[in-house]
Amino acid sequence: MAIQIPRGTQDILPSQVGTWELIENKAKEICHKYQYKEIRTPIFEHTELFHKSGETTDIVQKEMYSFKDRGDRDLTLRPEGTPAVVRSYVENKMYGDPNQPVKLFYNGPMFRYERPQAGRYRQFVQFGVEALGSQDPAIDAEVISLAMEVYQSLGLKHLKLVINSLGDKESRIAHREALIKHFKPRIHEFCADCQNRLEKNPLRILDCKKDRDHELMKSAPPIFEFFNEESKQYFDQVLAYLDALGIAYEVDPTLVRGLDYYNHTAFEIMSNAEGFGAITTLCGGGRYNGLVQEMGGPETPGMGFALSIERLIAALDAEGITLQTEAKVDCYVVALGDEAKIPAMVLLQQLRKAGYSADKDYLDRKMKAQLKAADRMKAKFVAILGEDEIKMNKVVVKNMENGEQVELSISNFISEFERLGR
Amino acid sequence: MAIQIPRGTQDILPSQVGTWELIENKAKEICHKYQYKEIRTPIFEHTELFHKSGETTDIVQKEMYSFKDRGDRDLTLRPEGTPAVVRSYVENKMYGDPNQPVKLFYNGPMFRYERPQAGRYRQFVQFGVEALGSQDPAIDAEVISLAMEVYQSLGLKHLKLVINSLGDKESRIAHREALIKHFKPRIHEFCADCQNRLEKNPLRILDCKKDRDHELMKSAPPIFEFFNEESKQYFDQVLAYLDALGIAYEVDPTLVRGLDYYNHTAFEIMSNAEGFGAITTLCGGGRYNGLVQEMGGPETPGMGFALSIERLIAALDAEGITLQTEAKVDCYVVALGDEAKIPAMVLLQQLRKAGYSADKDYLDRKMKAQLKAADRMKAKFVAILGEDEIKMNKVVVKNMENGEQVELSISNFISEFERLGR
Repeated sequence: MAIQIPRGTQDILPSQVGTWELIENKAKEICHKYQYKEIRTPIFEHTELFHKSGETTDIVQKEMYSFKDRGDRDLTLRPEGTPAVVRSYVENKMYGDPNQPVKLFYNGPMFRYERPQAGRYRQFVQFGVEALGSQDPAIDAEVISLAMEVYQSLGLKHLKLVINSLGDKESRIAHREALIKHFKPRIHEFCADCQNRLEKNPLRILDCKKDRDHELMKSAPPIFEFFNEESKQYFDQVLAYLDALGIAYEVDPTLVRGLDYYNHTAFEIMSNAEGFGAITTLCGGGRYNGLVQEMGGPETPGMGFALSIERLIAALDAEGITLQTEAKVDCYVVALGDEAKIPAMVLLQQLRKAGYSADKDYLDRKMKAQLKAADRMKAKFVAILGEDEIKMNKVVVKNMENGEQVELSISNFISEFERLGR
Repeated sequence: MAIQIPRGTQDILPSQVGTWELIENKAKEICHKYQYKEIRTPIFEHTELFHKSGETTDIVQKEMYSFKDRGDRDLTLRPEGTPAVVRSYVENKMYGDPNQPVKLFYNGPMFRYERPQAGRYRQFVQFGVEALGSQDPAIDAEVISLAMEVYQSLGLKHLKLVINSLGDKESRIAHREALIKHFKPRIHEFCADCQNRLEKNPLRILDCKKDRDHELMKSAPPIFEFFNEESKQYFDQVLAYLDALGIAYEVDPTLVRGLDYYNHTAFEIMSNAEGFGAITTLCGGGRYNGLVQEMGGPETPGMGFALSIERLIAALDAEGITLQTEAKVDCYVVALGDEAKIPAMVLLQQLRKAGYSADKDYLDRKMKAQLKAADRMKAKFVAILGEDEIKMNKVVVKNMENGEQVELSISNFISEFERLGR
């Protein structure tokens, strides 16, 4: 039996690549406008890197593709982009770059061993940005604005931006203590994961899918009650920037990011298109002022987001948006008879060298079948070359849009073809 | 200590990405002209897939990144592109596509656990094409021409195309028997790998790096002595096409591809630039008429090549070719005083929405430092916004190339800025 594609992965076929390319080019163009520069890190990293950035998360504990290489190194296919970008930032001492903050973007495959379902793959493509080295609330607004522009530039309308603040370290410590106090007396009613989270990272209890209906969840003290003045001010400034930029948002105090190094701004962009399905989050991001230091670099504020291209495409589908561009071939060269074969290849090469997309038959088909092939490829012109034409230094060129037919000379083909117009 | 990048891999930093992007865009553009369409397959495949395509090669035996996933599947990070493309061709029944042959290209990371050395990485990027479904020698010439054009379009001059034919199946079986007969009496003088190869795939003995100086190597019977009429004709036709297209080549009867499914055309493109180093092969390809069937599909001829972008860049370096394009920012917005912060963000957003690349300060720097930052980023224009200007609905815009300074109105900023010229 033929070997199949691994479960939870997909081929992006030629008929689909156009959509991907369009999205990626659009995202890159927006990054250029915002002056975020591309970085490409390896597909795998030392496993330790991801442990350092997310010890208690489900991703790290249950979903990583980890393996030993032939040199007995513990490696992991990257489950997300941020830790690798920060690793590279530290390793390449980008904190010493005269251009600050360092604004980066990435686009590439990520890997999580999850149950495959509609729009969820084990290999998926993430596009994300990271701004490292600024704690200006304007950067938070810029990052959010960039994410929104990616979606909006592709025509999406049914978007909802949800935002929250997790406060600074001091605020988070106070909140953490209050959460432990809140859950501890009845923690035995929660799942094993949550019991484990209680002392390690009680904020993640609020994220638990199993226990989400427990009555203690709703009554848990919200983070904003523990904000100090600085945290409050910071959040107000971020919101003031969003207001000024005309970016609508909804503040949701239950939006949390369970990683220890997250603080201040947390946001998600969701699709509220009808029929989009249960999982509506398209994009998640936030501020992570502690991560660079955690990774062995100097104390450096950070802000970023990541979005999945697969989910973006699902959102486009839900809104009925088609991005596909029609690919036409400029000229199809029809060769008749054995004598015409080599001259046809030479014409083909001339067309391509001149910048035209061009093709011919490679199956020894008869004229009719060759013309049919030209039709299927939506050729704008067909150049017909037979043995008689070759003797007379002629090639017949037909405009497939209006049916007009002209005779060009073989020896001067390209300059005469140019005149027919692209 | 900070965690480092895995051995044998590299980050492609923002200062280097431009070169990569230019090469990849050029390759894609050429594929469009030649009507090869992009396909993207997963980073990993079932391990079996690579065993099926290359049981006795060093890559499969010693260099693969293989691991078990959490569902106990045997997976391998792809060491090359062709098997996955063929797997997808069969799985997606592309042999039934009305457009034949199916012409595909791919570009992405591949993985081989080799000793890292100059220009050799454990993760490297391969660009390659596959033409499936035609046994026209014109397709062989087209594929070779495409590969050459990729290099030449980037300015490389010191290129050598080496070509050979391995003949068809019948020719290869005759050759195989002759090789066994040739080596068998003295096979005990060869390395263990070669002893193993003798019965499995004696052609690969000719590729052995350890035994290459053994006297039996030079005297081994060359494949062309075993060509039948069809094989001879096929090769002659390929060469006739190359001649007609003006593509210079050298026939090298020792050029072999050790995989069983290879036949007829085999080629390599090498750099003969001075100081390029010992490994001069940039690109390898050939015809593989047996592979699709081996993978569970119908009998289908195939022809393709693969090249490493890392080695292409090394060749550019050796010839002193720099592809980097200078990235300028269109406008840098300087904000003076707290009152100007939000209006500056609004101007920035207007510029970006209008398609300009634009940036501002996010470090609360003084005017002088902001202007210095604009200079470092090679800003074409600087827009200066202070508290007084805001009161008067004015923004001062300075052309950094000629020093000219004008006052624009804030409320009508973009349309007035447009007039200054991009």
